[in-house]
Amino acid sequence: MTREELIAQIRIKKSFLCVGLDTDLEKIPAHLLDLEDPIFEFNKAIIDATKDYCVAYKPNIAFYECHGPKGWESLKKTLDYIPKNIFTIADAKRGDIGNTSKYYADTFFKYLDADSVTIAPYMGEDSVTPFMDYKGKWVIMLALTSNKGALDFQFTKDQNNEELYKKVLRKSQKWGTDENLMYVVGATRAEGIGEVRKMVPNHFFLVPGVGAQGGSLEDVANFGWNKDCGIIVNSSRGIIYASDQEDFASEAGREAKALQQKMEAILNSKGF
Amino acid sequence: MTREELIAQIRIKKSFLCVGLDTDLEKIPAHLLDLEDPIFEFNKAIIDATKDYCVAYKPNIAFYECHGPKGWESLKKTLDYIPKNIFTIADAKRGDIGNTSKYYADTFFKYLDADSVTIAPYMGEDSVTPFMDYKGKWVIMLALTSNKGALDFQFTKDQNNEELYKKVLRKSQKWGTDENLMYVVGATRAEGIGEVRKMVPNHFFLVPGVGAQGGSLEDVANFGWNKDCGIIVNSSRGIIYASDQEDFASEAGREAKALQQKMEAILNSKGF
Repeated sequence: MTREELIAQIRIKKSFLCVGLDTDLEKIPAHLLDLEDPIFEFNKAIIDATKDYCVAYKPNIAFYECHGPKGWESLKKTLDYIPKNIFTIADAKRGDIGNTSKYYADTFFKYLDADSVTIAPYMGEDSVTPFMDYKGKWVIMLALTSNKGALDFQFTKDQNNEELYKKVLRKSQKWGTDENLMYVVGATRAEGIGEVRKMVPNHFFLVPGVGAQGGSLEDVANFGWNKDCGIIVNSSRGIIYASDQEDFASEAGREAKALQQKMEAILNSKGF
Repeated sequence: MTREELIAQIRIKKSFLCVGLDTDLEKIPAHLLDLEDPIFEFNKAIIDATKDYCVAYKPNIAFYECHGPKGWESLKKTLDYIPKNIFTIADAKRGDIGNTSKYYADTFFKYLDADSVTIAPYMGEDSVTPFMDYKGKWVIMLALTSNKGALDFQFTKDQNNEELYKKVLRKSQKWGTDENLMYVVGATRAEGIGEVRKMVPNHFFLVPGVGAQGGSLEDVANFGWNKDCGIIVNSSRGIIYASDQEDFASEAGREAKALQQKMEAILNSKGF
Protein backbone atom coordinates (compact mmCIF):
# COMPACT_ATOMS: atom_id res chain seq x y z
CA MET A 1 0.00 0.00 0.00
CA THR A 2 1.31 3.47 -0.87
CA ARG A 3 1.45 6.46 1.47
CA GLU A 4 -1.23 8.17 -0.62
CA GLU A 5 -3.55 5.17 -0.36
CA LEU A 6 -3.07 5.05 3.40
CA ILE A 7 -3.91 8.73 3.77
CA ALA A 8 -6.98 8.24 1.56
CA GLN A 9 -8.17 5.44 3.87
CA ILE A 10 -7.73 7.68 6.92
CA ARG A 11 -9.96 10.29 5.22
CA ILE A 12 -12.59 7.76 4.11
CA LYS A 13 -12.87 5.96 7.46
CA LYS A 14 -12.23 9.05 9.61
CA SER A 15 -9.92 6.88 11.63
CA PHE A 16 -6.21 6.31 12.25
CA LEU A 17 -6.83 3.19 14.32
CA CYS A 18 -4.74 0.01 14.12
CA VAL A 19 -6.17 -3.10 15.77
CA GLY A 20 -3.46 -5.29 17.29
CA LEU A 21 -4.11 -8.99 16.78
CA ASP A 22 -2.24 -10.35 19.83
CA THR A 23 -4.37 -13.47 19.72
CA ASP A 24 -3.74 -15.58 22.80
CA LEU A 25 -5.36 -19.01 23.35
CA GLU A 26 -5.34 -18.26 27.08
CA LYS A 27 -7.52 -15.18 26.59
CA ILE A 28 -9.92 -15.90 23.74
CA PRO A 29 -13.44 -17.10 24.59
CA ALA A 30 -13.53 -20.75 25.68
CA HIS A 31 -16.24 -21.72 23.18
CA LEU A 32 -13.76 -21.15 20.30
CA LEU A 33 -11.20 -23.62 21.60
CA ASP A 34 -13.03 -26.67 20.19
CA LEU A 35 -12.86 -25.34 16.63
CA GLU A 36 -10.17 -26.55 14.25
CA ASP A 37 -8.33 -23.22 14.10
CA PRO A 38 -9.45 -21.14 17.11
CA ILE A 39 -6.90 -18.38 16.43
CA PHE A 40 -8.11 -17.78 12.89
CA GLU A 41 -11.78 -18.05 13.90
CA PHE A 42 -11.21 -15.44 16.61
CA ASN A 43 -9.35 -13.12 14.22
CA LYS A 44 -11.98 -13.55 11.50
CA ALA A 45 -14.76 -12.51 13.88
CA ILE A 46 -12.66 -9.59 15.21
CA ILE A 47 -11.87 -8.41 11.67
CA ASP A 48 -15.53 -8.64 10.60
CA ALA A 49 -16.55 -6.59 13.64
CA THR A 50 -13.83 -3.91 13.48
CA LYS A 51 -12.89 -3.48 9.80
CA ASP A 52 -15.12 -0.43 9.30
CA TYR A 53 -13.39 1.43 12.13
CA CYS A 54 -9.69 0.85 11.52
CA VAL A 55 -7.14 1.52 8.80
CA ALA A 56 -4.60 -1.11 9.91
CA TYR A 57 -4.24 -4.51 11.57
CA LYS A 58 -1.09 -5.54 13.42
CA PRO A 59 -0.67 -9.25 14.16
CA ASN A 60 2.05 -9.73 16.75
CA ILE A 61 4.11 -12.58 15.31
CA ALA A 62 5.16 -14.05 18.69
CA PHE A 63 1.57 -15.08 19.42
CA TYR A 64 1.46 -17.19 16.22
CA GLU A 65 5.04 -18.44 16.09
CA CYS A 66 4.73 -20.10 19.51
CA HIS A 67 2.30 -22.61 17.99
CA GLY A 68 4.75 -23.81 15.35
CA PRO A 69 3.61 -24.52 11.76
CA LYS A 70 -0.06 -24.41 12.81
CA GLY A 71 0.43 -20.89 14.16
CA TRP A 72 1.99 -19.76 10.87
CA GLU A 73 -1.01 -21.19 9.03
CA SER A 74 -3.38 -19.21 11.27
CA LEU A 75 -1.28 -16.10 10.63
CA LYS A 76 -1.27 -16.58 6.85
CA LYS A 77 -5.04 -17.17 6.80
CA THR A 78 -5.53 -14.05 8.91
CA LEU A 79 -3.47 -11.86 6.57
CA ASP A 80 -5.28 -13.29 3.55
CA TYR A 81 -8.62 -12.50 5.20
CA ILE A 82 -7.88 -8.82 5.90
CA PRO A 83 -9.46 -6.59 3.22
CA LYS A 84 -6.85 -5.22 0.80
CA ASN A 85 -7.67 -1.58 1.59
CA ILE A 86 -6.47 -2.08 5.17
CA PHE A 87 -2.75 -1.66 5.92
CA THR A 88 -1.15 -4.75 7.49
CA ILE A 89 1.75 -4.68 9.93
CA ALA A 90 3.73 -7.82 10.75
CA ASP A 91 4.93 -6.91 14.23
CA ALA A 92 8.06 -9.04 14.20
CA LYS A 93 10.88 -6.74 15.38
CA ARG A 94 13.39 -8.55 13.19
CA GLY A 95 16.90 -7.41 12.19
CA ASP A 96 19.99 -9.37 11.16
CA ILE A 97 22.91 -9.03 8.76
CA GLY A 98 22.23 -8.47 5.07
CA ASN A 99 21.60 -11.87 3.52
CA THR A 100 19.60 -12.96 6.57
CA SER A 101 17.46 -9.82 6.58
CA LYS A 102 16.64 -10.56 2.94
CA TYR A 103 15.10 -13.88 4.00
CA TYR A 104 13.13 -12.22 6.78
CA ALA A 105 11.89 -9.73 4.19
CA ASP A 106 10.82 -12.63 1.97
CA THR A 107 8.89 -14.09 4.90
CA PHE A 108 6.85 -10.98 5.60
CA PHE A 109 6.59 -9.39 2.15
CA LYS A 110 6.34 -12.43 -0.12
CA TYR A 111 5.07 -15.37 1.92
CA LEU A 112 2.70 -13.37 4.14
CA ASP A 113 2.30 -10.41 1.74
CA ALA A 114 2.05 -7.95 4.65
CA ASP A 115 2.38 -4.25 3.83
CA SER A 116 5.01 -3.66 6.51
CA VAL A 117 7.23 -5.21 9.14
CA THR A 118 8.64 -3.82 12.39
CA ILE A 119 12.46 -3.78 12.60
CA ALA A 120 14.95 -3.31 15.47
CA PRO A 121 17.83 -0.92 14.69
CA TYR A 122 20.71 -2.22 16.88
CA MET A 123 22.66 -3.82 13.99
CA GLY A 124 22.53 -0.69 11.83
CA GLU A 125 22.04 0.15 8.16
CA ASP A 126 22.82 -3.17 6.47
CA SER A 127 20.35 -4.95 8.76
CA VAL A 128 17.55 -2.60 7.67
CA THR A 129 17.98 -1.67 4.01
CA PRO A 130 17.36 -5.21 2.65
CA PHE A 131 13.74 -4.71 3.76
CA MET A 132 13.47 -1.58 1.61
CA ASP A 133 13.89 -3.21 -1.78
CA TYR A 134 10.26 -4.35 -2.02
CA LYS A 135 7.96 -2.05 -3.96
CA GLY A 136 4.93 -0.86 -1.99
CA LYS A 137 6.26 -2.40 1.25
CA TRP A 138 7.32 -0.60 4.41
CA VAL A 139 9.82 -0.82 7.23
CA ILE A 140 8.54 0.36 10.61
CA MET A 141 11.63 0.95 12.71
CA LEU A 142 11.72 0.91 16.50
CA ALA A 143 12.69 4.39 17.68
CA LEU A 144 11.12 5.13 21.06
CA THR A 145 9.32 2.15 22.56
CA SER A 146 6.53 2.26 25.14
CA ASN A 147 7.97 -0.23 27.65
CA LYS A 148 9.92 0.49 30.83
CA GLY A 149 13.11 -1.00 29.35
CA ALA A 150 13.14 1.82 26.77
CA LEU A 151 14.93 3.80 29.49
CA ASP A 152 17.90 1.39 29.51
CA PHE A 153 19.46 2.45 26.20
CA GLN A 154 17.15 4.60 24.06
CA PHE A 155 17.65 7.77 26.10
CA THR A 156 21.43 7.44 26.43
CA LYS A 157 22.94 10.77 25.35
CA ASP A 158 26.07 10.75 23.24
CA GLN A 159 28.89 13.29 23.35
CA ASN A 160 26.92 15.67 21.13
CA ASN A 161 24.02 15.49 23.60
CA GLU A 162 21.97 13.36 21.21
CA GLU A 163 19.86 10.54 22.66
CA LEU A 164 20.22 7.12 21.00
CA TYR A 165 16.62 7.15 19.73
CA LYS A 166 17.30 10.48 18.03
CA LYS A 167 20.45 9.11 16.44
CA VAL A 168 18.41 6.17 15.16
CA LEU A 169 15.91 8.63 13.67
CA ARG A 170 18.55 10.91 12.18
CA LYS A 171 20.66 8.20 10.56
CA SER A 172 17.81 6.03 9.37
CA GLN A 173 16.11 8.86 7.49
CA LYS A 174 18.92 8.48 4.97
CA TRP A 175 18.16 4.77 4.53
CA GLY A 176 14.55 5.20 3.41
CA THR A 177 11.92 7.81 2.62
CA ASP A 178 8.51 8.74 3.98
CA GLU A 179 7.16 6.40 1.28
CA ASN A 180 8.76 3.24 2.73
CA LEU A 181 9.81 4.00 6.30
CA MET A 182 7.74 4.64 9.44
CA TYR A 183 8.76 4.72 13.08
CA VAL A 184 7.47 3.08 16.27
CA VAL A 185 6.99 5.83 18.84
CA GLY A 186 5.35 4.77 22.10
CA ALA A 187 2.28 6.63 23.39
CA THR A 188 3.53 6.40 26.97
CA ARG A 189 6.15 9.03 26.10
CA ALA A 190 3.93 11.76 24.67
CA GLU A 191 6.54 14.51 24.94
CA GLY A 192 8.98 12.21 23.19
CA ILE A 193 6.51 12.00 20.31
CA GLY A 194 6.75 15.78 19.99
CA GLU A 195 10.54 15.58 19.91
CA VAL A 196 10.38 12.92 17.23
CA ARG A 197 7.88 14.91 15.17
CA LYS A 198 10.24 17.90 15.16
CA MET A 199 13.03 15.74 13.73
CA VAL A 200 10.83 13.76 11.34
CA PRO A 201 8.16 16.03 9.93
CA ASN A 202 6.81 13.79 7.17
CA HIS A 203 7.10 10.13 8.18
CA PHE A 204 4.20 8.20 9.65
CA PHE A 205 4.46 6.95 13.24
CA LEU A 206 3.03 3.70 14.54
CA VAL A 207 2.03 4.50 18.11
CA PRO A 208 1.44 1.63 20.54
CA GLY A 209 0.68 2.07 24.21
CA VAL A 210 -2.70 3.85 24.16
CA GLY A 211 -5.19 2.13 26.48
CA ALA A 212 -3.85 -0.78 28.57
CA GLN A 213 -0.34 0.74 28.72
CA GLY A 214 -1.68 4.16 29.79
CA GLY A 215 -0.96 6.50 26.86
CA SER A 216 -3.45 9.27 26.01
CA LEU A 217 -4.96 9.47 22.52
CA GLU A 218 -5.33 13.24 22.73
CA ASP A 219 -1.67 13.72 23.71
CA VAL A 220 -0.52 11.43 20.92
CA ALA A 221 -2.58 13.37 18.38
CA ASN A 222 -1.35 16.73 19.67
CA PHE A 223 2.32 15.80 19.71
CA GLY A 224 2.42 13.47 16.71
CA TRP A 225 0.17 15.18 14.18
CA ASN A 226 1.44 16.32 10.78
CA LYS A 227 -0.33 17.67 7.68
CA ASP A 228 -1.17 14.13 6.49
CA CYS A 229 -2.32 12.98 9.96
CA GLY A 230 0.98 11.07 10.21
CA ILE A 231 -0.03 8.74 13.05
CA ILE A 232 -1.45 5.24 13.26
CA VAL A 233 -2.49 4.47 16.82
CA ASN A 234 -2.58 0.84 17.89
CA SER A 235 -4.86 -0.73 20.45
CA SER A 236 -4.71 -4.48 21.06
CA ARG A 237 -6.02 -5.82 24.36
CA GLY A 238 -8.50 -2.98 24.92
CA ILE A 239 -10.33 -3.99 21.74
CA ILE A 240 -9.87 -7.70 21.14
CA TYR A 241 -10.37 -8.72 24.78
CA ALA A 242 -13.23 -6.32 25.53
CA SER A 243 -15.25 -9.44 26.38
CA ASP A 244 -14.28 -13.09 26.88
CA GLN A 245 -17.84 -14.27 26.29
CA GLU A 246 -19.83 -15.12 23.16
CA ASP A 247 -20.30 -11.39 22.53
CA PHE A 248 -16.52 -10.86 22.14
CA ALA A 249 -16.75 -9.72 18.52
CA SER A 250 -19.57 -7.25 18.99
CA GLU A 251 -17.85 -5.87 22.10
CA ALA A 252 -14.60 -5.52 20.15
CA GLY A 253 -16.55 -3.71 17.44
CA ARG A 254 -18.06 -1.40 20.08
CA GLU A 255 -14.60 -0.55 21.50
CA ALA A 256 -13.12 0.00 18.04
CA LYS A 257 -16.03 2.24 17.10
CA ALA A 258 -15.62 4.26 20.31
CA LEU A 259 -11.96 4.86 19.50
CA GLN A 260 -12.78 5.66 15.86
CA GLN A 261 -15.28 8.27 17.02
CA LYS A 262 -12.69 9.92 19.25
CA MET A 263 -10.35 9.91 16.27
CA GLU A 264 -13.03 11.39 14.03
CA ALA A 265 -13.45 14.25 16.50
CA ILE A 266 -9.69 14.82 16.47
CA LEU A 267 -9.54 14.71 12.65
CA ASN A 268 -12.45 17.18 12.49
CA SER A 269 -10.81 19.50 15.02
CA LYS A 270 -7.66 19.50 12.87
CA GLY A 271 -9.72 20.30 9.78
CA PHE A 272 -8.54 17.09 8.10
CA MET B 1 22.33 -27.66 28.76
CA THR B 2 24.26 -26.29 31.73
CA ARG B 3 27.51 -24.32 31.57
CA GLU B 4 29.34 -27.25 33.14
CA GLU B 5 28.01 -29.66 30.50
CA LEU B 6 29.04 -27.31 27.71
CA ILE B 7 32.58 -27.02 29.07
CA ALA B 8 32.73 -30.81 29.40
CA GLN B 9 31.81 -31.16 25.71
CA ILE B 10 34.54 -28.71 24.72
CA ARG B 11 37.05 -30.89 26.60
CA ILE B 12 35.75 -34.17 25.19
CA LYS B 13 35.61 -33.01 21.56
CA LYS B 14 38.62 -30.68 21.75
CA SER B 15 36.53 -28.16 19.89
CA PHE B 16 34.65 -24.93 20.44
CA LEU B 17 33.08 -25.00 16.98
CA CYS B 18 29.49 -24.07 16.19
CA VAL B 19 28.15 -25.03 12.77
CA GLY B 20 25.71 -22.48 11.41
CA LEU B 21 22.75 -24.06 9.62
CA ASP B 22 21.89 -21.20 7.21
CA THR B 23 20.24 -23.67 4.90
CA ASP B 24 19.34 -21.99 1.64
CA LEU B 25 17.42 -23.74 -1.17
CA GLU B 26 19.37 -21.62 -3.66
CA LYS B 27 22.68 -23.01 -2.42
CA ILE B 28 22.15 -26.63 -1.49
CA PRO B 29 23.02 -29.35 -4.04
CA ALA B 30 20.45 -29.62 -6.81
CA HIS B 31 19.95 -33.36 -6.36
CA LEU B 32 18.30 -32.72 -2.96
CA LEU B 33 15.59 -30.46 -4.35
CA ASP B 34 13.40 -33.34 -5.51
CA LEU B 35 13.15 -34.82 -2.02
CA GLU B 36 10.10 -34.12 0.13
CA ASP B 37 11.98 -31.97 2.65
CA PRO B 38 15.27 -30.86 1.04
CA ILE B 39 16.16 -28.55 3.92
CA PHE B 40 15.91 -31.28 6.53
CA GLU B 41 17.70 -33.83 4.30
CA PHE B 42 20.55 -31.38 3.79
CA ASN B 43 20.77 -30.60 7.53
CA LYS B 44 20.61 -34.29 8.45
CA ALA B 45 23.55 -35.09 6.18
CA ILE B 46 25.51 -32.06 7.44
CA ILE B 47 24.85 -33.02 11.08
CA ASP B 48 25.90 -36.65 10.47
CA ALA B 49 29.13 -35.44 8.84
CA THR B 50 30.05 -32.71 11.37
CA LYS B 51 28.67 -33.79 14.76
CA ASP B 52 32.00 -35.25 15.97
CA TYR B 53 33.78 -31.93 15.37
CA CYS B 54 31.44 -29.34 16.87
CA VAL B 55 29.88 -28.54 20.23
CA ALA B 56 27.01 -26.43 18.89
CA TYR B 57 24.63 -25.96 15.96
CA LYS B 58 23.06 -22.62 15.11
CA PRO B 59 20.10 -22.68 12.74
CA ASN B 60 19.43 -19.18 11.45
CA ILE B 61 15.66 -18.84 11.78
CA ALA B 62 15.18 -16.53 8.77
CA PHE B 63 16.20 -19.32 6.39
CA TYR B 64 13.36 -21.53 7.70
CA GLU B 65 10.71 -18.93 8.42
CA CYS B 66 10.70 -17.72 4.79
CA HIS B 67 9.16 -21.07 3.77
CA GLY B 68 6.14 -20.68 6.06
CA PRO B 69 4.78 -23.68 8.02
CA LYS B 70 6.87 -26.12 5.98
CA GLY B 71 10.05 -24.27 6.96
CA TRP B 72 9.10 -24.48 10.64
CA GLU B 73 8.59 -28.21 10.23
CA SER B 74 12.08 -28.55 8.71
CA LEU B 75 13.47 -26.51 11.60
CA LYS B 76 11.71 -28.58 14.26
CA LYS B 77 12.87 -31.84 12.65
CA THR B 78 16.43 -30.47 12.50
CA LEU B 79 16.46 -29.55 16.18
CA ASP B 80 15.01 -32.94 17.10
CA TYR B 81 17.72 -34.64 15.06
CA ILE B 82 20.67 -32.88 16.73
CA PRO B 83 22.25 -35.14 19.41
CA LYS B 84 21.36 -33.96 22.93
CA ASN B 85 25.00 -33.46 23.94
CA ILE B 86 25.34 -30.67 21.36
CA PHE B 87 24.30 -27.13 22.34
CA THR B 88 21.60 -25.64 20.08
CA ILE B 89 21.25 -21.95 19.27
CA ALA B 90 18.09 -20.56 17.69
CA ASP B 91 19.56 -17.54 15.91
CA ALA B 92 16.42 -15.45 15.93
CA LYS B 93 17.47 -12.02 17.24
CA ARG B 94 14.09 -11.49 18.87
CA GLY B 95 13.13 -8.89 21.47
CA ASP B 96 9.76 -7.33 22.34
CA ILE B 97 7.89 -6.11 25.41
CA GLY B 98 7.35 -8.50 28.30
CA ASN B 99 4.27 -10.56 27.49
CA THR B 100 5.33 -10.85 23.85
CA SER B 101 8.87 -11.93 24.75
CA LYS B 102 7.31 -14.67 26.87
CA TYR B 103 5.65 -16.09 23.75
CA TYR B 104 8.88 -15.89 21.77
CA ALA B 105 10.56 -17.76 24.63
CA ASP B 106 7.85 -20.43 24.44
CA THR B 107 8.56 -20.77 20.72
CA PHE B 108 12.27 -21.40 21.10
CA PHE B 109 12.47 -23.09 24.50
CA LYS B 110 9.25 -25.13 24.55
CA TYR B 111 8.15 -25.73 20.97
CA LEU B 112 11.64 -26.10 19.46
CA ASP B 113 13.38 -27.07 22.73
CA ALA B 114 16.56 -25.20 21.71
CA ASP B 115 19.15 -24.57 24.42
CA SER B 116 19.44 -20.88 23.61
CA VAL B 117 18.12 -17.98 21.55
CA THR B 118 19.79 -14.81 20.29
CA ILE B 119 18.20 -11.55 21.52
CA ALA B 120 18.51 -7.89 20.44
CA PRO B 121 18.92 -5.43 23.33
CA TYR B 122 17.36 -2.19 22.00
CA MET B 123 14.14 -2.45 24.06
CA GLY B 124 16.00 -3.04 27.34
CA GLU B 125 15.59 -5.19 30.42
CA ASP B 126 11.93 -6.15 30.25
CA SER B 127 12.38 -7.36 26.67
CA VAL B 128 15.17 -9.75 27.75
CA THR B 129 14.42 -11.11 31.21
CA PRO B 130 11.29 -13.09 30.16
CA PHE B 131 13.71 -15.38 28.28
CA MET B 132 15.64 -16.07 31.49
CA ASP B 133 12.87 -17.83 33.39
CA TYR B 134 13.48 -21.19 31.68
CA LYS B 135 15.68 -23.64 33.57
CA GLY B 136 18.70 -24.85 31.59
CA LYS B 137 18.02 -22.36 28.77
CA TRP B 138 20.18 -19.44 27.67
CA VAL B 139 19.88 -15.93 26.28
CA ILE B 140 22.64 -14.95 23.83
CA MET B 141 22.51 -11.17 23.63
CA LEU B 142 23.79 -9.09 20.73
CA ALA B 143 26.64 -6.93 22.01
CA LEU B 144 29.14 -6.28 19.23
CA THR B 145 28.04 -7.60 15.86
CA SER B 146 30.28 -8.53 12.93
CA ASN B 147 28.51 -6.54 10.20
CA LYS B 148 29.37 -3.11 8.82
CA GLY B 149 26.21 -1.58 10.32
CA ALA B 150 27.57 -2.31 13.81
CA LEU B 151 29.39 1.01 13.41
CA ASP B 152 26.12 2.96 13.18
CA PHE B 153 25.11 2.72 16.84
CA GLN B 154 27.13 0.13 18.80
CA PHE B 155 30.24 2.30 19.09
CA THR B 156 28.43 5.51 20.01
CA LYS B 157 30.09 6.90 23.15
CA ASP B 158 27.92 8.35 25.87
CA GLN B 159 28.79 11.25 28.13
CA ASN B 160 30.83 8.96 30.41
CA ASN B 161 32.85 7.85 27.38
CA GLU B 162 31.16 4.46 27.35
CA GLU B 163 30.29 2.88 23.98
CA LEU B 164 26.74 1.58 23.58
CA TYR B 165 27.90 -2.04 23.30
CA LYS B 166 29.73 -1.67 26.62
CA LYS B 167 26.64 -0.22 28.23
CA VAL B 168 24.66 -3.19 26.93
CA LEU B 169 27.25 -5.51 28.49
CA ARG B 170 27.42 -3.64 31.79
CA LYS B 171 23.69 -3.34 32.36
CA SER B 172 22.75 -6.78 31.10
CA GLN B 173 25.15 -8.56 33.44
CA LYS B 174 22.68 -7.67 36.18
CA TRP B 175 19.83 -9.32 34.29
CA GLY B 176 21.38 -12.77 34.08
CA THR B 177 24.41 -14.81 35.14
CA ASP B 178 27.16 -16.70 33.36
CA GLU B 179 24.87 -19.73 33.72
CA ASN B 180 22.09 -18.33 31.52
CA LEU B 181 23.52 -15.41 29.53
CA MET B 182 26.09 -15.32 26.72
CA TYR B 183 26.98 -12.53 24.30
CA VAL B 184 27.36 -12.26 20.54
CA VAL B 185 30.76 -10.71 19.83
CA GLY B 186 31.79 -10.56 16.17
CA ALA B 187 35.13 -12.01 15.08
CA THR B 188 35.66 -9.15 12.65
CA ARG B 189 36.35 -6.90 15.65
CA ALA B 190 39.07 -8.88 17.41
CA GLU B 191 40.26 -6.01 19.58
CA GLY B 192 36.65 -5.41 20.56
CA ILE B 193 36.56 -9.00 21.79
CA GLY B 194 39.46 -8.18 24.13
CA GLU B 195 37.57 -5.14 25.45
CA VAL B 196 34.50 -7.25 26.04
CA ARG B 197 36.51 -9.97 27.78
CA LYS B 198 37.90 -7.40 30.23
CA MET B 199 34.38 -6.33 31.17
CA VAL B 200 32.89 -9.81 31.17
CA PRO B 201 35.43 -12.29 32.50
CA ASN B 202 33.20 -15.33 32.96
CA HIS B 203 30.44 -15.33 30.36
CA PHE B 204 30.66 -17.36 27.16
CA PHE B 205 30.79 -15.51 23.83
CA LEU B 206 29.23 -16.69 20.60
CA VAL B 207 31.61 -15.45 17.91
CA PRO B 208 30.37 -15.25 14.32
CA GLY B 209 32.39 -13.85 11.43
CA VAL B 210 35.32 -16.29 11.22
CA GLY B 211 35.83 -17.45 7.64
CA ALA B 212 33.58 -15.88 4.98
CA GLN B 213 33.33 -12.60 6.93
CA GLY B 214 37.10 -12.39 7.43
CA GLY B 215 37.69 -12.85 11.18
CA SER B 216 40.77 -14.76 12.39
CA LEU B 217 40.35 -17.81 14.63
CA GLU B 218 43.68 -17.19 16.35
CA ASP B 219 42.82 -13.56 17.16
CA VAL B 220 39.44 -14.58 18.49
CA ALA B 221 41.04 -17.20 20.74
CA ASN B 222 43.71 -14.81 21.97
CA PHE B 223 41.33 -11.96 22.75
CA GLY B 224 38.29 -13.95 23.86
CA TRP B 225 39.79 -16.77 25.92
CA ASN B 226 38.94 -17.28 29.59
CA LYS B 227 39.72 -20.08 32.06
CA ASP B 228 36.77 -22.16 30.81
CA CYS B 229 37.58 -21.52 27.12
CA GLY B 230 34.65 -19.08 27.08
CA ILE B 231 34.18 -18.91 23.31
CA ILE B 232 32.02 -20.70 20.80
CA VAL B 233 33.12 -19.85 17.27
CA ASN B 234 30.56 -20.12 14.50
CA SER B 235 31.19 -20.99 10.88
CA SER B 236 28.27 -21.33 8.49
CA ARG B 237 28.94 -20.96 4.76
CA GLY B 238 32.58 -22.10 4.95
CA ILE B 239 31.41 -25.49 6.20
CA ILE B 240 27.95 -26.21 4.87
CA TYR B 241 28.63 -24.94 1.35
CA ALA B 242 32.13 -26.37 1.01
CA SER B 243 30.76 -28.25 -2.00
CA ASP B 244 27.51 -27.98 -3.96
CA GLN B 245 27.90 -31.45 -5.41
CA GLU B 246 26.95 -34.92 -4.15
CA ASP B 247 30.01 -34.84 -1.87
CA PHE B 248 28.63 -31.82 0.06
CA ALA B 249 28.37 -33.69 3.36
CA SER B 250 31.83 -35.24 3.30
CA GLU B 251 33.32 -31.89 2.24
CA ALA B 252 31.47 -30.19 5.09
CA GLY B 253 32.86 -32.82 7.45
CA ARG B 254 36.35 -32.19 6.11
CA GLU B 255 36.04 -28.41 6.68
CA ALA B 256 34.60 -28.91 10.16
CA LYS B 257 37.40 -31.32 11.04
CA ALA B 258 40.02 -28.85 9.78
CA LEU B 259 38.59 -26.14 12.03
CA GLN B 260 38.33 -28.58 14.96
CA GLN B 261 41.99 -29.45 14.56
CA LYS B 262 42.99 -25.78 14.63
CA MET B 263 40.87 -25.45 17.76
CA GLU B 264 42.47 -28.53 19.31
CA ALA B 265 45.90 -26.96 18.76
CA ILE B 266 44.68 -23.75 20.43
CA LEU B 267 43.17 -25.67 23.37
CA ASN B 268 46.43 -27.64 23.77
CA SER B 269 48.50 -24.45 23.63
CA LYS B 270 46.33 -22.99 26.39
CA GLY B 271 46.80 -26.16 28.47
CA PHE B 272 43.04 -26.71 28.48
